[in-house]
Amino acid sequence: MLKNYDIPDLKRIRIEAPFWKERIQVAAEKVIPFQWEAINGRVESEAGRSFAVRNLKIAGGLCNEKYEEPLFQDSDIGKWVEAASYSLLYHPNGEIESHIDEVVDLLERVQLPDGYLNSYFIAAHPEKRYKNFAWGHELYCCGHLLEGALAYYQVTGKDKMLRIMERYLEHLMKKLGHGEGQIPAYSGHPEIEIALMRLYHATKEKKYLTFCKYLINERGREPVYFESESGFDKEGDIKWMGLDYMVADKPFLNQENATGHAVRAMYLYAGAAELAAETQDEMLEQTLYRLWESTIRRRVYVTAGVGAHAYGERFSIDYDLPNDSCYTETCASIGLVFWAQRMQGLKLDTEYGDWLERAVYNGALSGIAVDGEHYFYVNPLEVRPDVVHYRYDMKHVKTQRVPWYGCCCCPPNLMRMITSIGKIIYGKDDSGLFIHQYIGNQCDIDWKQGQCSITMESGFPWNGNVKITLGMQERQHFTLYLRIPSWTENSWLVKINGKSETCRDKLTGGYICLEREWSDQDEIEIYFDMSPRIIYANQAVAEDSGCVAVQRGPLIYCVEEIDNGKMLQSILIKDSAVFKESWKTDMNGYIELVTEDGMKEKGEGVQLYSYGKPEICQTQVKLLPYFLWGNRGEGEMRVWIRYSV
Amino acid sequence: MLKNYDIPDLKRIRIEAPFWKERIQVAAEKVIPFQWEAINGRVESEAGRSFAVRNLKIAGGLCNEKYEEPLFQDSDIGKWVEAASYSLLYHPNGEIESHIDEVVDLLERVQLPDGYLNSYFIAAHPEKRYKNFAWGHELYCCGHLLEGALAYYQVTGKDKMLRIMERYLEHLMKKLGHGEGQIPAYSGHPEIEIALMRLYHATKEKKYLTFCKYLINERGREPVYFESESGFDKEGDIKWMGLDYMVADKPFLNQENATGHAVRAMYLYAGAAELAAETQDEMLEQTLYRLWESTIRRRVYVTAGVGAHAYGERFSIDYDLPNDSCYTETCASIGLVFWAQRMQGLKLDTEYGDWLERAVYNGALSGIAVDGEHYFYVNPLEVRPDVVHYRYDMKHVKTQRVPWYGCCCCPPNLMRMITSIGKIIYGKDDSGLFIHQYIGNQCDIDWKQGQCSITMESGFPWNGNVKITLGMQERQHFTLYLRIPSWTENSWLVKINGKSETCRDKLTGGYICLEREWSDQDEIEIYFDMSPRIIYANQAVAEDSGCVAVQRGPLIYCVEEIDNGKMLQSILIKDSAVFKESWKTDMNGYIELVTEDGMKEKGEGVQLYSYGKPEICQTQVKLLPYFLWGNRGEGEMRVWIRYSV
Repeated sequence: MLKNYDIPDLKRIRIEAPFWKERIQVAAEKVIPFQWEAINGRVESEAGRSFAVRNLKIAGGLCNEKYEEPLFQDSDIGKWVEAASYSLLYHPNGEIESHIDEVVDLLERVQLPDGYLNSYFIAAHPEKRYKNFAWGHELYCCGHLLEGALAYYQVTGKDKMLRIMERYLEHLMKKLGHGEGQIPAYSGHPEIEIALMRLYHATKEKKYLTFCKYLINERGREPVYFESESGFDKEGDIKWMGLDYMVADKPFLNQENATGHAVRAMYLYAGAAELAAETQDEMLEQTLYRLWESTIRRRVYVTAGVGAHAYGERFSIDYDLPNDSCYTETCASIGLVFWAQRMQGLKLDTEYGDWLERAVYNGALSGIAVDGEHYFYVNPLEVRPDVVHYRYDMKHVKTQRVPWYGCCCCPPNLMRMITSIGKIIYGKDDSGLFIHQYIGNQCDIDWKQGQCSITMESGFPWNGNVKITLGMQERQHFTLYLRIPSWTENSWLVKINGKSETCRDKLTGGYICLEREWSDQDEIEIYFDMSPRIIYANQAVAEDSGCVAVQRGPLIYCVEEIDNGKMLQSILIKDSAVFKESWKTDMNGYIELVTEDGMKEKGEGVQLYSYGKPEICQTQVKLLPYFLWGNRGEGEMRVWIRYSV
Repeated sequence: MLKNYDIPDLKRIRIEAPFWKERIQVAAEKVIPFQWEAINGRVESEAGRSFAVRNLKIAGGLCNEKYEEPLFQDSDIGKWVEAASYSLLYHPNGEIESHIDEVVDLLERVQLPDGYLNSYFIAAHPEKRYKNFAWGHELYCCGHLLEGALAYYQVTGKDKMLRIMERYLEHLMKKLGHGEGQIPAYSGHPEIEIALMRLYHATKEKKYLTFCKYLINERGREPVYFESESGFDKEGDIKWMGLDYMVADKPFLNQENATGHAVRAMYLYAGAAELAAETQDEMLEQTLYRLWESTIRRRVYVTAGVGAHAYGERFSIDYDLPNDSCYTETCASIGLVFWAQRMQGLKLDTEYGDWLERAVYNGALSGIAVDGEHYFYVNPLEVRPDVVHYRYDMKHVKTQRVPWYGCCCCPPNLMRMITSIGKIIYGKDDSGLFIHQYIGNQCDIDWKQGQCSITMESGFPWNGNVKITLGMQERQHFTLYLRIPSWTENSWLVKINGKSETCRDKLTGGYICLEREWSDQDEIEIYFDMSPRIIYANQAVAEDSGCVAVQRGPLIYCVEEIDNGKMLQSILIKDSAVFKESWKTDMNGYIELVTEDGMKEKGEGVQLYSYGKPEICQTQVKLLPYFLWGNRGEGEMRVWIRYSV
């Protein structure tokens, strides 16, 4: 059993990749402080305002205002603490640290003598406590606070918040379960499962693993707990906001398809995958492979967006992937990052890394503007602003990123992903070291082979040149597993200490396996071809028929009105199109793709319908990375572009 | 000023076209009796049950049950009486006639001493009377009852219902207006405008014209009346169900675009067009031309469906014409028939007849099954049943016609259209006779030239051969105006008494104008080429890009799963495709189009996305008329088919 999710300590990874270094810097210097303002209600936005910190003050008896919903804002506190903690790794900041301490002190005040800790059920509706696990988000908030506490502890060594959360967990573990006087509940919105597994790994305390197992196994068992809660039916009809929305319509081991609210599903699957890797539970593992297949073969966008269906922010049926009305929440793609990462703990398969990479660089990063201060919740693959502004069935879509949301899960979630991006690079087990992602960094690892330092230089995501230099005192025998991204297909080369290696016979699960005795200053150079590629969707996806997407390396590209004019639907490219790459310096720099093998139909006359075929003329088509769309003003955007042979 | 909407008396038109004769027979023998059962609450359907007659009984004090909404069911009574009356023309039926009499007696009982007559505001909520013109549908119901009364009177000579309605109108004309103690209201749902113009033409009483003019001119004037009604805001937010939904956001003469609830808009425009033709009001005429352009150039489907936007059952913005989630209500296409017909009273332009014809044979007729007893409310141009069943934003769509609807406007509306189809054929003015539609019939007209009989044999909609034989005592000098449908373009021929006529110099507004002295037994033969044609949409319609529609004569065609397999999106046809026509005997007979110039992409592997281009193979593609879709079980359907050069 591999345990290659078992990542090295973040403290010992220094991100050197300019792409990420810049983003981490913006996060630390600008966004984390900005989000502190936001969760203190000092950022106004058309999409609402956040009162997360004030709610804590109210619950702690420090303030007399009215508690402001949504009821799950403690989770934003948790996510902010987590992101802020990671940012301290790179950019020590006394003010931010003191804000975190302030939050921790507040949490201490809020915590009840019995350990219970949730601002909403303390300040706003104590009478509803333990009566609404379906919609109350108690365990969800607990999970996020716990992740924040762990991060803060791991970065600073300060354990006050972690102790608070451990007390809360003791309380919850007493309260929930099958025993006498216990409530057989679990969380309407999964998250705590991931947090518990992290806590288990940090503390090695089995009780957290056991509690996580209980939460996953109990879910959806007959009689389904949520149905016993009085408010359950009132909150939404069973079809759309009911048990399958919660991924609680059947026991987890019986789940056949990716279904329900996409973020809930991703978080649950992520927690379950980590549990499966730890417990080697075969049935659980099979369930996860099944859900992976369902997601990746039939229910995910090419941008790694998940949640095609706006109503319920949920998965739709197989192959139903509308490009303009989809939900594809930023948090759901982040959830896919978490899940894919943990699937790497089950099996060596480059596909997990492929989708993780795709989710990071496309569906997740598109959620944040270049300035770091504007966000998308919904990440469509096709936008026509006039239509979006008019249509009721697209009222969830925004054509421009906004500064903050009343229901503000995505922005702090992005921050914690960015500031902890080092987590996705490596894995290790007894046999060796896994390089899952090529993000330039410097890292030290301890393992039974001894201590090893790794210096990775990488041009990702803009070019496919990677150089890894090993550092060690004495020679070490281990396997270096290098992931071959699927977009490069067979176009890759490996050199060791300057000498080309034929590695075609050393492939396992899409990884190059270099087993040998390594020496200090050994150099591994890898070249992955990042030539632009044309992607075709399965014919079953009606919305993509007749269209192609363009990918370059890990990046999915798109066309925007600002570069190509209005009516992007009238643009075609040849499937043999040749793309010229050029480095643009705006938006922090990116590679633009330009092809002369484009065509534009000229069918815009006065008639709506006619018997005359539209004229077609050659045109230049410019594409930019999808994650950068919408940074240059409002306009049309399309990922799937019509093609002609 | 032409007045070519001035149709001959329906009693003097005998429909001989098998296509329509059969439908009228089914209507008279099966559907009208069936709909009588339905409005008596004796037809169950997943979409609800109707209590229209029982509501009248309750209001008349004959029954003690609870009044059942929707509140506008008196209109179904009106439409049923109208349809049933027309059906008596072709199929005298004592039982049906006695049911109508029964209804008339009920209406007499319901009518209050002051003339007021509306079951809902009498039986259910008398306290709300005159307080909810925006949503109460009083004037809408009055209009339909009046149209029913007129039809019954015109067919049977029985005037009891007409007298009842005249009393009601006297009451309304006293109550509404600008005078002292009057309410400056108009109808939230237009319809009464059409009915008043009919009554005016039947009675020549100017007061009805004046009232109609008041209702149209008052609409949308500041301060907008509906806003003074207390319930107005509560019923829906201003954006979606507000003033523009009612076409009351500005004075009618200031309306720029087809907007709001599509049926409301169509009925209002139809009434206004008849008023404009009668009053020769230049401003009103210009407004109608503007609204026509807006509708036909930018906001109508190729099937003549109107109302792209499900929420609000309304027009969307220019060129926003989604094929799968549209509303395109049967009644809205019927409304377009009414409107286009009345636009013919303003100007001689074949375009009115084109869209009238397109609406009748496609968007309207698709609303009814071959059996006459199952109906669509919503007429999409693309259906994938699994998606429709799952998606919340398509919950208005049905994949199969259902027997009846709780809100049942479309079925009886279709019946009155079918049973009075003779109305759309002719127009006349002082100069001559207009042949707008080629539906085989025998007809007598009286005019100042004397009496003339017309026998029209026509192969429409299956073939374009038409023969018109005139009958008269003495020679008459007049112009015969023959509409050239736009789908035939220049492929038409005319013979008079067996001799080819070069008519290219005799065209006005797309009509052939044959001015001469006509004799008894003069024969005019016309041949319109009905070869299948490929239609291209304006490039601004994103949803149709890369696709074509196929038309043959007045019929728009579509592909169905039963003929072409699943995944219709993977089918392409060449834009030079040759179609074989073959007569099929099922579904009362139709011409199927078959082409070997089709292709099918074979991209359905296990992968959702791949770098390999889908294989493509030649395939046969079968098309059938759109109005017949969904008569052979559930399956996919598509009007817009991908094309390749």
